[in-house]
Amino acid sequence: PSSSKLLIKGGTVVNAHHQQIADVYIEDGLIVAVNPTITVGDEVRVIDATGKFVMPGGIDPHTHLEFEFMNTVTKDDFFSGQAAALAGGTTMHIDFAIPIDGSLTAGFEAYEKKAQKSCMDYGFHMAITKWDETVAREMELMVEKGINSFKFFMAYKGALMIGDELLLQGLKKCKSLGALAMVHAENGDAIDEGQKKMIELGITGPEGHALSRPPVLEGEATARAIRLADFVNTPLYVVHVMSIDAMEEIAKARTSGQRVIGEPIVSGLALDGSWLWHPDFVTAAKYLMSPPIRKQGHDKALQAALATGVLQLVGTDHCVFNSTQKSLGIDDFRKIPNGVNGIEERMHLVWDIMVESGQISVTDYVRLTSTECARIFNIYPRKGAILPGSDADIIILNPNSSFEVTAKSHHSRVDTNVFEGWRGKGKIEVTISRGRVVWENNELKVAPGTGRYIEMSPFSYLFDGLDKKDASYLNSLQAPVKRAKSTA
Amino acid sequence: PSSSKLLIKGGTVVNAHHQQIADVYIEDGLIVAVNPTITVGDEVRVIDATGKFVMPGGIDPHTHLEFEFMNTVTKDDFFSGQAAALAGGTTMHIDFAIPIDGSLTAGFEAYEKKAQKSCMDYGFHMAITKWDETVAREMELMVEKGINSFKFFMAYKGALMIGDELLLQGLKKCKSLGALAMVHAENGDAIDEGQKKMIELGITGPEGHALSRPPVLEGEATARAIRLADFVNTPLYVVHVMSIDAMEEIAKARTSGQRVIGEPIVSGLALDGSWLWHPDFVTAAKYLMSPPIRKQGHDKALQAALATGVLQLVGTDHCVFNSTQKSLGIDDFRKIPNGVNGIEERMHLVWDIMVESGQISVTDYVRLTSTECARIFNIYPRKGAILPGSDADIIILNPNSSFEVTAKSHHSRVDTNVFEGWRGKGKIEVTISRGRVVWENNELKVAPGTGRYIEMSPFSYLFDGLDKKDASYLNSLQAPVKRAKSTA
Amino acid sequence: PSSSKLLIKGGTVVNAHHQQIADVYIEDGLIVAVNPTITVGDEVRVIDATGKFVMPGGIDPHTHLEFEFMNTVTKDDFFSGQAAALAGGTTMHIDFAIPIDGSLTAGFEAYEKKAQKSCMDYGFHMAITKWDETVAREMELMVEKGINSFKFFMAYKGALMIGDELLLQGLKKCKSLGALAMVHAENGDAIDEGQKKMIELGITGPEGHALSRPPVLEGEATARAIRLADFVNTPLYVVHVMSIDAMEEIAKARTSGQRVIGEPIVSGLALDGSWLWHPDFVTAAKYLMSPPIRKQGHDKALQAALATGVLQLVGTDHCVFNSTQKSLGIDDFRKIPNGVNGIEERMHLVWDIMVESGQISVTDYVRLTSTECARIFNIYPRKGAILPGSDADIIILNPNSSFEVTAKSHHSRVDTNVFEGWRGKGKIEVTISRGRVVWENNELKVAPGTGRYIEMSPFSYLFDGLDKKDASYLNSLQAPVKRAKSTA
Amino acid sequence: PSSSKLLIKGGTVVNAHHQQIADVYIEDGLIVAVNPTITVGDEVRVIDATGKFVMPGGIDPHTHLEFEFMNTVTKDDFFSGQAAALAGGTTMHIDFAIPIDGSLTAGFEAYEKKAQKSCMDYGFHMAITKWDETVAREMELMVEKGINSFKFFMAYKGALMIGDELLLQGLKKCKSLGALAMVHAENGDAIDEGQKKMIELGITGPEGHALSRPPVLEGEATARAIRLADFVNTPLYVVHVMSIDAMEEIAKARTSGQRVIGEPIVSGLALDGSWLWHPDFVTAAKYLMSPPIRKQGHDKALQAALATGVLQLVGTDHCVFNSTQKSLGIDDFRKIPNGVNGIEERMHLVWDIMVESGQISVTDYVRLTSTECARIFNIYPRKGAILPGSDADIIILNPNSSFEVTAKSHHSRVDTNVFEGWRGKGKIEVTISRGRVVWENNELKVAPGTGRYIEMSPFSYLFDGLDKKDASYLNSLQAPVKRAKSTA
Ligand SMILES: [Zn+2]
Ligand SMILES: [Zn+2]
Ligand SMILES: [Zn+2]
Ligand SMILES: [Zn+2]
Ligand SMILES: [Zn+2]
Ligand SMILES: [Zn+2]
Ligand SMILES: [Zn+2]
Ligand SMILES: [Zn+2]
Repeated sequence: PSSSKLLIKGGTVVNAHHQQIADVYIEDGLIVAVNPTITVGDEVRVIDATGKFVMPGGIDPHTHLEFEFMNTVTKDDFFSGQAAALAGGTTMHIDFAIPIDGSLTAGFEAYEKKAQKSCMDYGFHMAITKWDETVAREMELMVEKGINSFKFFMAYKGALMIGDELLLQGLKKCKSLGALAMVHAENGDAIDEGQKKMIELGITGPEGHALSRPPVLEGEATARAIRLADFVNTPLYVVHVMSIDAMEEIAKARTSGQRVIGEPIVSGLALDGSWLWHPDFVTAAKYLMSPPIRKQGHDKALQAALATGVLQLVGTDHCVFNSTQKSLGIDDFRKIPNGVNGIEERMHLVWDIMVESGQISVTDYVRLTSTECARIFNIYPRKGAILPGSDADIIILNPNSSFEVTAKSHHSRVDTNVFEGWRGKGKIEVTISRGRVVWENNELKVAPGTGRYIEMSPFSYLFDGLDKKDASYLNSLQAPVKRAKSTA
Repeated sequence: PSSSKLLIKGGTVVNAHHQQIADVYIEDGLIVAVNPTITVGDEVRVIDATGKFVMPGGIDPHTHLEFEFMNTVTKDDFFSGQAAALAGGTTMHIDFAIPIDGSLTAGFEAYEKKAQKSCMDYGFHMAITKWDETVAREMELMVEKGINSFKFFMAYKGALMIGDELLLQGLKKCKSLGALAMVHAENGDAIDEGQKKMIELGITGPEGHALSRPPVLEGEATARAIRLADFVNTPLYVVHVMSIDAMEEIAKARTSGQRVIGEPIVSGLALDGSWLWHPDFVTAAKYLMSPPIRKQGHDKALQAALATGVLQLVGTDHCVFNSTQKSLGIDDFRKIPNGVNGIEERMHLVWDIMVESGQISVTDYVRLTSTECARIFNIYPRKGAILPGSDADIIILNPNSSFEVTAKSHHSRVDTNVFEGWRGKGKIEVTISRGRVVWENNELKVAPGTGRYIEMSPFSYLFDGLDKKDASYLNSLQAPVKRAKSTA
Repeated sequence: PSSSKLLIKGGTVVNAHHQQIADVYIEDGLIVAVNPTITVGDEVRVIDATGKFVMPGGIDPHTHLEFEFMNTVTKDDFFSGQAAALAGGTTMHIDFAIPIDGSLTAGFEAYEKKAQKSCMDYGFHMAITKWDETVAREMELMVEKGINSFKFFMAYKGALMIGDELLLQGLKKCKSLGALAMVHAENGDAIDEGQKKMIELGITGPEGHALSRPPVLEGEATARAIRLADFVNTPLYVVHVMSIDAMEEIAKARTSGQRVIGEPIVSGLALDGSWLWHPDFVTAAKYLMSPPIRKQGHDKALQAALATGVLQLVGTDHCVFNSTQKSLGIDDFRKIPNGVNGIEERMHLVWDIMVESGQISVTDYVRLTSTECARIFNIYPRKGAILPGSDADIIILNPNSSFEVTAKSHHSRVDTNVFEGWRGKGKIEVTISRGRVVWENNELKVAPGTGRYIEMSPFSYLFDGLDKKDASYLNSLQAPVKRAKSTA
Repeated sequence: PSSSKLLIKGGTVVNAHHQQIADVYIEDGLIVAVNPTITVGDEVRVIDATGKFVMPGGIDPHTHLEFEFMNTVTKDDFFSGQAAALAGGTTMHIDFAIPIDGSLTAGFEAYEKKAQKSCMDYGFHMAITKWDETVAREMELMVEKGINSFKFFMAYKGALMIGDELLLQGLKKCKSLGALAMVHAENGDAIDEGQKKMIELGITGPEGHALSRPPVLEGEATARAIRLADFVNTPLYVVHVMSIDAMEEIAKARTSGQRVIGEPIVSGLALDGSWLWHPDFVTAAKYLMSPPIRKQGHDKALQAALATGVLQLVGTDHCVFNSTQKSLGIDDFRKIPNGVNGIEERMHLVWDIMVESGQISVTDYVRLTSTECARIFNIYPRKGAILPGSDADIIILNPNSSFEVTAKSHHSRVDTNVFEGWRGKGKIEVTISRGRVVWENNELKVAPGTGRYIEMSPFSYLFDGLDKKDASYLNSLQAPVKRAKSTA
């Protein structure tokens, strides 16, 4: 049968807004029809999905492939990281392009090059690490190039961090462009203090990392970013929400009507930070990331908030370094490259933690692993849906089959796995990327250069009505007051 | 052209999950196709919707038509109330069937009869006003008859009110049936005290109603119902959320992962309670309902919570009494029949308050006036969507046209209107009920007996995974502990 | 030297409002002078307190001596329990007198008799377990007899529990008498359900007790009592605050200006409930009380709230049963007599947990173990202070000495101790009860019949200004509205 | 009779910890005795206080006398401001000394000079407006000179504002010195944006001031300062808490055990900000201060929090400019000198708002107008108490007499009064400053040069146990983890 025609038969087709038993017919990388019964000719390959869930492929909103960071570079590049993703049911990701010497254009071009070996679809966020008129102008250019989100770092003092003055400029610029402002929310000044203190106390191991940047500093920066975004009246996206402290700030803001998106990541949902105290350095160091994975209790609270929509979608912050790289910090936790894996495990673990535990429905699962991401970054329903006309990025999950995570069997190039040994029910048996079956029978069929860059337009649904809201605000001011110039 | 075929052309078709410019083709009361361009023959009537929004008809989850209450009966019956609804863009409602002498069956039959004159689709909730084995068994029967929600009154002491013991039994029964427990959440014992106190103080007018049942009593009962539902692990629906106090309890519960639905009503969103202090009795009395419309500030806070999904859908509690009826309580506010209008105004006012103010998008509007109600009561996507196969309950809203509310021009039989004089942008120009154009050019074309009873199945999405959650809970207990019988 | 004259020399005299190095001179059971240097004749016994803290003896606001409960009676009577108290630095307690067949008078007389063997000062709260006109009248009588607080049980369904209707009556009566309303705050209806469920699940051991009454039920009842007290505008005292859930309700109410007192108890501050899962029944059962000692985390949160005055004073709920008695429930946790010890350990443990950990100052320690209790129950500065004219109830604590808790060495008659093995710094070396040294060199010198009944007047500081607040409230109503009788 | 001996007879003597009817005997500026009946010779002047309250004179923790600010200088200097204070029952204040060109020493000396004309006792806080080693060393010097508190400005960008990095340094230095860190908490970067925006919108009047710095910016900075202080583990004092937003952050921190002091000011408690919209510029401008006086609702919420100890003491931020000075900003609100009056009105208004309304008791009144301030700044019981040995700073308040505030009759040099026309019950009839009757029969008897500088020692009660808390923290870290150097 033709490789460009495919029929998925008899599965439960799940969209975020509805699930039904139906067939899905695919041609040339696109979904052509979704109907209870579709009849096709012999030239069409038929995949039987009876008793299984047919769902939009995962979209990972937060990855770092071939990322040069802390004097080294992540193990996974756009090919190996994406291959791992596909093996785990993720069919698109959005990576953080980083400026070069402050130049967004140079950064964008460098990431274009890195992404040439892609085997699945991808998009870019762009980091903003300094501020001047050139950067402001380049942001416009980036939007033209299909980037609709910019990330600001409130941590990494001396490197990526910007202060409130620049953050405010950034928020305003984002608003005018219809681009989503994202923040890494930790108080960088205080972390700097905390790190010095730990070193002074002789705490140089990975546990010092967690101790130097406690949840209160994540809560602080989250609260600050939220309020500044409120002041500017523009939507905000908080990346890697790792703590109750940050989550509660988001909950509070949303309750008062503010448009704030909170992204927990799979390691924060599934793990606790006690590993950083492990007596084996390499074991401890593999769990080191920023903000740190927190104490027990934060994980369950983040799950709960995710279940009810207080948090909206799940990322990974996939940013992997192998044991040799992690060992750069053997004498000083500040030199351990920050990052954990997740791009391959996210879909399985979210299923296990959230669906198998009864916290969410299968439609919710689709929403928070795929659809909501597509809506936020304005590529829905091309992505994030199984609808006629959508890209044929599809997974088939067998709820009665099992999965297990091991570094030995995973597809990432990193030599460790923070979810090592995790077993659960719900196995993604097939992954289809733009109509091609790329993962089946535990085998990957991928080739570099087959992935496409997905342009993302500004002014997503998060911007709907903002102009009216601004107008309402102005109307409410009862100002300027008309005054006779009195002679005091 | 045939009255059973209809093409809506060129509008922006809005579903909760997506909006697009498309044509909608209808046959025999069902939506047959939604596509960018649909060509039809001459026998099909074509309605031009260019520049307008084509949306699912509203579903009002909370009405009281032909309701015998407080020694009188509401002015609107199933015909007049529904006619008003259709004129205002609502194409289905769910009314509260009330037991007769505690008998659910008798109550159901009585409401079946009342509903024979219906001109639009409807369903029923069933109130539970006492508790015994018969009631428990009748609940099963009601589920078979297409009712999937039961309402418990924590107020109206001596009449409808039940205590915590019975509420717990009710919650358990609901859970086992897959039926949604609803609560009118006010502390009835305290209200009883409050009423006596007001009378003692000589405060016998409508303002005494508000003063005798302050927000703290709504907050209390809401918190209690939420926690008891959590204890039983079953979803909860809080009707007519009128205060910040109640809303914040819902927000808190949701943040901790609990499945609680909060329904504000249009009068609570749009009005403040200062009217109850109006020196003209009839004017004051028309605003009297329970829980009371609150002080300024509650309205805006409810709007904000609705905008971000902390509250999920909007009802009306349409329950109308004319001035003569309201005057039954001229000497004692306790005798003023409780209730306000809204079934006709809801769709226009929610548009004006929420969309025109920039607080929500048009897709949100569809979600909270229609889709979410359909999902909660398990009739989606038959209702609440413009999808092939859905019932053709559709409205066409012109965002550039204006509306005005007056008692003179409204279609309800009541002689007053709590939204008197409200003007706003966004006019519902056409209402289609199961394929028939019933409202057009400001004219109603309705006939008694054309509405259908919509059966609603139990186990909506709110019940997804509850069994797994129960199992997770049991696993977490680490009990029973195995113990040797020690000789103390 | 005369036993009725005593000089305590050179210690740091600590009152809640101030600490200073000073001498304390005592005659005939009263404090006569507190001055930096007091010179006395040879007939006066001098105790050297250099380097030690001289503080008001502890007052335990919550004990149950010789309490007939659950078909048995507590091991400690008014002599043994008080002797233990004195050995631990507590010089007064307030016990809960229980009505007999609903009669307060009969209950009071029975407790008068029980207390005849007292060896230290004591007062009574009175429980209210049913409601009628007689009870209301007897409450007035009790106030005349020196009782200024009444306790209501929201739990113990079928036994002590009362519903909201009666609680409201009780709150109103308390307000009119200037008596403090106290609540045992757990939802008794839900606990009843929870207990049945545990038994059905085959969980009959002590862990079933905790599982049947989770924190959410304590939070619920606390919130309810607080809001009803707010509705009535009378102060409220929440006994044994055991959970974050309850504490946060108190914090919220206080932040909004409400007069709510929260009493954690020493076992709730110092222990966690994992003991109830202990495989040895007797060990597990000794920790069983209501509300249950909670999971780890609640203890620290209660300590924090205590440190800043969100909670105000520490009790014990001392109510002890020995192993044989606890074994009544070997097959059914519902039959295990509820209660733990604490009257002897409270002062040492609060010092260790709160002062030694740096959470509070020494003046704070005095406030929350003694002074605040005296203020709340209106016996300050006779009790709770080291001031001229105050009763000479004094302890001398050596901050450099150590203590250890064991059942072997304690003075209570119970055969176990929930704090077994606890070691800490800060030893109470001397206890003086109304001028007599009753504890010194680890020896008790006490005799039955030497304790006095302390009458407590109504209208403590918590009632200051309530009448004005009521008047402000009435002024704010803008009611009744004057209305012409309109012809509707 | 001798002017140095005084007997106050028959009044109700109120301390924060106790009130009683007693006589107060004074000699040479000190309180010698407080007893129910004191007999004196004829040489002693006797003041009859029967039926009146005899209380510690007020201490105002927050004033700006002879303050050079915004290119002008406040109208009240140390003589006129203090005279006004005495007429209003305040007998001590703590003023903010401001560095000169960053030099604390120069600033201190300048304020020493300004204060030479004092007629009542005073102390200083010191502002920190930049940071370097010199400043750090000068802070030590200031502590030696009797200053135990340093204020940091998170607002006034380009002038006094410091960022988080310096704030952290300041907090650490304060901790090491036992000095209290104070913050003016508003986000200066965002205010700068807000001001530009208002000017762009053509809103140049006083209302633009409020609109440019909404409560969210006060809440943000308060939260940030609190969390940074928590991170450093040092106490924090938030000056002029003006909004619910800030207050709730303080409440939250205190509930979790943090030592945070919140100071509302009398204008924030008594007024609402609608005055800034007044059509007469001078009227509007007189209410302009930072943070702004907020909308209705904030005032009541601050009162409630004050009543229960969530906020601890009341200041004024007395900083007055007359109409001509205010008119500097007639064309641009940014040029209107910031500040309102209050030093003379505070004691009367707090009585009226808090005691007369029934929100607090008379002992509470003493606590929050005097005693708590004395405790926080470590001058208790010399100040803030009527105890033998205390300074004879005393007021006599007649609860049945009335007061009225007018610019015409007040003693400040400013030509307006933000409390103009306020009438209430509770009149301070006599003020005694260190034993001298300075205010009586509505007449002031004061002379420049009679006030004394009060040195304030570091390490107030707020620092009790901090070292232990630090030690507990270190113990809890379980770090450094011992690790073999593994070969990764
Ligand atoms: Zn990051
Ligand atoms: Zn990242
Ligand atoms: Zn209702
Ligand atoms: Zn209703
Ligand atoms: Zn109890
Ligand atoms: Zn008890
Ligand atoms: Zn300031
Ligand atoms: Zn100031």
